[in-house]
Amino acid sequence: MNATSRNCIAELGGLFDPQSVAIVGASSTPGKWGFEYARQLLGSASSRDIYLVNQRGGIIHGNEAYTSVQLLPARPELVVICVPAAQVQSAVDEALEAGARYIVCVTAGFKEAGEEGRKLENQMRDRIRAAGARLVGPNCVGLYDAAAKLACTAFWDLPPGDIGIISQSGGVIVDLGMRLPRERLGISRAVSVGNQADLNVGEFIGSFAVDPNTRVITAYVEEFRDGRRLFEAIEYARDLGKEVILLAPRAGEAVGRSVASHTGSMISNEDVLASTCADLDVVRVRGIGDLLLALRGLGAPARSRGRRVAVVADGGGSATLGTDAAVAEGLEVPGFSVELIRKLKNISPNSGVGNPVDLVGALDLGVFQPIIQEIASSGEVDAILMNGAFNNVAGASMEGERAVATNIQNVCSQSGVALSVATMATGEPAMTALAADRVPVFDYPLEAARCLELGRKRMPVRKLIATVDSCAFRGKTDYLASRNALGEAGVTFSKSLHAKDIDEAAEAAGTIGYPVVLKALGSLHKSDSGAVVLGIRDETALRTTVADLNNRLRPTGFSVEEMVMEGDAMELLIGGIRDPAFGPTVVVAAGGTKTEIWRDRVVALAPVEEDTALRMLSSLRIAPLFAGFRGSSPVDLSAAAKAAAALSRFISGHENVVEAEINPLIVGPTRCVAVDARIVTTS
Amino acid sequence: MNATSRNCIAELGGLFDPQSVAIVGASSTPGKWGFEYARQLLGSASSRDIYLVNQRGGIIHGNEAYTSVQLLPARPELVVICVPAAQVQSAVDEALEAGARYIVCVTAGFKEAGEEGRKLENQMRDRIRAAGARLVGPNCVGLYDAAAKLACTAFWDLPPGDIGIISQSGGVIVDLGMRLPRERLGISRAVSVGNQADLNVGEFIGSFAVDPNTRVITAYVEEFRDGRRLFEAIEYARDLGKEVILLAPRAGEAVGRSVASHTGSMISNEDVLASTCADLDVVRVRGIGDLLLALRGLGAPARSRGRRVAVVADGGGSATLGTDAAVAEGLEVPGFSVELIRKLKNISPNSGVGNPVDLVGALDLGVFQPIIQEIASSGEVDAILMNGAFNNVAGASMEGERAVATNIQNVCSQSGVALSVATMATGEPAMTALAADRVPVFDYPLEAARCLELGRKRMPVRKLIATVDSCAFRGKTDYLASRNALGEAGVTFSKSLHAKDIDEAAEAAGTIGYPVVLKALGSLHKSDSGAVVLGIRDETALRTTVADLNNRLRPTGFSVEEMVMEGDAMELLIGGIRDPAFGPTVVVAAGGTKTEIWRDRVVALAPVEEDTALRMLSSLRIAPLFAGFRGSSPVDLSAAAKAAAALSRFISGHENVVEAEINPLIVGPTRCVAVDARIVTTS
Repeated sequence: MNATSRNCIAELGGLFDPQSVAIVGASSTPGKWGFEYARQLLGSASSRDIYLVNQRGGIIHGNEAYTSVQLLPARPELVVICVPAAQVQSAVDEALEAGARYIVCVTAGFKEAGEEGRKLENQMRDRIRAAGARLVGPNCVGLYDAAAKLACTAFWDLPPGDIGIISQSGGVIVDLGMRLPRERLGISRAVSVGNQADLNVGEFIGSFAVDPNTRVITAYVEEFRDGRRLFEAIEYARDLGKEVILLAPRAGEAVGRSVASHTGSMISNEDVLASTCADLDVVRVRGIGDLLLALRGLGAPARSRGRRVAVVADGGGSATLGTDAAVAEGLEVPGFSVELIRKLKNISPNSGVGNPVDLVGALDLGVFQPIIQEIASSGEVDAILMNGAFNNVAGASMEGERAVATNIQNVCSQSGVALSVATMATGEPAMTALAADRVPVFDYPLEAARCLELGRKRMPVRKLIATVDSCAFRGKTDYLASRNALGEAGVTFSKSLHAKDIDEAAEAAGTIGYPVVLKALGSLHKSDSGAVVLGIRDETALRTTVADLNNRLRPTGFSVEEMVMEGDAMELLIGGIRDPAFGPTVVVAAGGTKTEIWRDRVVALAPVEEDTALRMLSSLRIAPLFAGFRGSSPVDLSAAAKAAAALSRFISGHENVVEAEINPLIVGPTRCVAVDARIVTTS
Repeated sequence: MNATSRNCIAELGGLFDPQSVAIVGASSTPGKWGFEYARQLLGSASSRDIYLVNQRGGIIHGNEAYTSVQLLPARPELVVICVPAAQVQSAVDEALEAGARYIVCVTAGFKEAGEEGRKLENQMRDRIRAAGARLVGPNCVGLYDAAAKLACTAFWDLPPGDIGIISQSGGVIVDLGMRLPRERLGISRAVSVGNQADLNVGEFIGSFAVDPNTRVITAYVEEFRDGRRLFEAIEYARDLGKEVILLAPRAGEAVGRSVASHTGSMISNEDVLASTCADLDVVRVRGIGDLLLALRGLGAPARSRGRRVAVVADGGGSATLGTDAAVAEGLEVPGFSVELIRKLKNISPNSGVGNPVDLVGALDLGVFQPIIQEIASSGEVDAILMNGAFNNVAGASMEGERAVATNIQNVCSQSGVALSVATMATGEPAMTALAADRVPVFDYPLEAARCLELGRKRMPVRKLIATVDSCAFRGKTDYLASRNALGEAGVTFSKSLHAKDIDEAAEAAGTIGYPVVLKALGSLHKSDSGAVVLGIRDETALRTTVADLNNRLRPTGFSVEEMVMEGDAMELLIGGIRDPAFGPTVVVAAGGTKTEIWRDRVVALAPVEEDTALRMLSSLRIAPLFAGFRGSSPVDLSAAAKAAAALSRFISGHENVVEAEINPLIVGPTRCVAVDARIVTTS
């Protein structure tokens, strides 16, 4: 994160703990938002000055209202605006004049209402910024800070805690406010970002990152308008030791229709979002249910460092279903070592102990204790998933049961092994004891497994690379110019010469050496229209071909090119687009004419270094072919990675390039050459 | 289902409602299984005679025990055996002598204990069958029938209802017995099948299908030993109007390890299982949580006939998250017609009504009622998913809220539109009213969506075809013999001639016409070892090639073949294996040397008709290429389907063929010919 963003963070401090707040549009009519905001704000009047403003004055919640911001006895640090849309502009002007540092515009009817609203919204933002102030909203429902006792909201009644919520939907905050206490969780800070005319989700993530009371930052994001900055903010927050959870629905036609009705924007490209979350190992969930699983996992006494899970169950069915649940969530259930199996057999000779552990018919938790202890201290797994009835049939006292449960929990925590429990009897004393210690206890093994996966410690595969030097690409973008530009960027191309006519073509072919490839220039989809002829063997054939192409396509000229005849070679595609939300991206894929059929591709934010490009190539389905397949030789993958990295730098470095593509890049055992090129710039 | 299986069904009637039951191994020691079984059985003594047998006699639960089955006053229809393993064989003999029709062997220590146990188990089964009786188990935990008041179990305390449970795990029945009442559901019949030495899951499905008290049959299956019969039984049950849910964990290495410890068997091939469930549109779930969602969906007042869902929410966030949940579960959220949108706008002018419907901030259920009514009666969707808070803030009475909820439910039911609700406030009066009417109400939209998908009315894509005439394949299985056999089965091959030596090869090539393909015979992986040479242009080249192959490979002979030069042709693989659990299968796939890389394939139980083969081909990722791609001509797909159907009949019709494969099948615009063949039989 650069210096500018850090300044933003510092500035936002006072937003969540202002010395004074004015509410413009305060109302004495119950049910009106101005009534609710005033009531909630007055609750923090012992911590700050609260000024109620209503143009008609009057008594609101027992306090006399000012008729104008201009009449306030002191400067309001934060001004909340909830007057009708037509009065917003003058209210903003008055607030700025009065010296407001922050304006929260609750009122709707701006960008989401159409072009006129968008214009008004931008003007408002520009005026606020020019005055050195910042804007939350418009079309938002406020903010909250537990430590500062600030409830600048209409309906929220939020439980205090250490979870920060940044949301594009006020309803999601209401929802979490109701659900979190049931899970013994609460909220440190919350903000409804509305239309994000000025302050956006990324900036709030940065601000929450430096809030000492926030342990986990949760962001509900429908629209990734500046997705790259958002992920930079996530990296920053995680560097400061904060956990970050992204609640982001999947982009799609139907979801887009919903979001369009909500904020006037389309959801961003799902591929880029998913791959970026994977690269940075960001917890991304798609629903409130999974968000709560993640929060419970992150808050558990111990979190797993990896995906290896031991399943410990009270019977064959629960062992099998517990194992399947773990596998379904992408966890591994590795077989135990011979030594560990021997130890477990000593404890329970008649059980299946290979992982899963099947303690046939063991209902009492005491039977599980020595088994769990042995597994937790073995170092062979990162987590333990218990699945069973866990009823107290051995007749232990409730206190005894609770003690066993606590012991099991301690054993796991001390070994740094995560524990997650699924049981049909969540109300048993042992289970409530575990839950009181924040061990996640669930009805079903699938939830227990997903909680482990969502709650595990994260390990980014890469760091984002800033695109420092970005300028406009001034060159032409026809075929030959594209080849040259990408060639200069560091991609190796096959030999080629430009030829205006039949004689120049013959001369070029002589220089390059037969067989050659002939491409007619000036047509867009070269291979579709038959404008590319491969393997021309001699001058006679060349002249015939030129004549034929002249006849059919009336080309503007020709490219005579080396016929790349690398044995055991493969065709790749390397390319990139400038995503409207995430900026420059790079893609590697199985290439050739069927690339759209196979859709065997990996995307990442550009630029990428060669090591990242290599990892991307190695994740393709065709990757087994790179090492040599059925007797063929291994290809020069590192050369392909170099080419992809070069192309990624090219698109990142040229802000007007919206697309760049090489298909195919022919990569063989001894050579890696591009034989086609395409660059598209903004007009 | 054939006549034999139908007889089995008829015979099983008395198993769940026997006139008399003897329990051998009844015990007066609390905690022992013989004690629990006796107690539970005595509970139905008013409906039938219960005889307690213990070799030492004595008083058990106040009844005098017989010291031997031989001393019983009358013939026991059902004999339950829970004596130690060493005494089981004589107990079985005595039971059969006494005229038992059914034996339930609770005792474990048979197949699951090793080879000796397997032998004993088979002997026991054979003796029982020879006596005209049937065996449940061994290694099982009993059975239950609510209507017959029969609880032949140790620990179960099951709630009565209309759900039948057939389970490979007794624990799963215990689990469901605890969970179902919470969902207002109960059990008609249950059986723990144990090792299935005699009676198996498929037979029980057939028997439950004719039980008038069972509406839904639920089978927990880890091991598909005769998967085909099981699916035939499912087809049969569904033809009789029963719903069937398969609870089957996914096959995999770790899950296999679990099942191995459980029943001594590996889970069956996941591909075949998944594709068969898809073909027959069987509800298949992997966990207890999803099973309950399915049961609630199947028991709802209305079930959807398709996947079109309207999402109706109280805000932008809940609309988006509800929509994403529906999409995540494979449902469609189609845009509404202009007419429906107009009607909804009339009702709620300020809402987003395109689908999803976003009734911004509408907390009261009354606001939703006219919207739901309009959507339900439009015919544009199969289901409605509501997502929101649904708090009563308008101040309606609890009765009023309940009435609105009931009205919403009725409107949906009358239109045959399924309703599923997600809310953060399941305890509100309206929500409990819906739940009381069996409308599924959940905490999270993902559950609501999954319930709709699992509960929708089912529509099999195909019927299973019985393999009537199956005989042994007596032919050879070398390359040429395989070509001939599959050719006779109806697959068209390229022209080919066998040649012993260089001169015969030249003569053959002359007959076929150059260019030709030459294959050296006698080596297994022809294309790997360079034993196949394509495109030999003339006799000189042919003779050189023969000499080279003779030198390198010392072949036993040659196949001289037509060089198939079909423009715009594609390579397919068609094949099949005999699955250990499901019998003959057929696969169609993207063919050629990279078939394992792409893994673009579709599997089905063999045989298939041409229409099924065509559907399989059309589901491949490469299917867009069949219609002509980037200017190429469409291929003769129906010929490829004919070839696949022919191959599927071949493998089905020959019980000793474990594998048959053609790769590639070259399919072009005018021809479809096989150019390779492989048959593997059991030795």
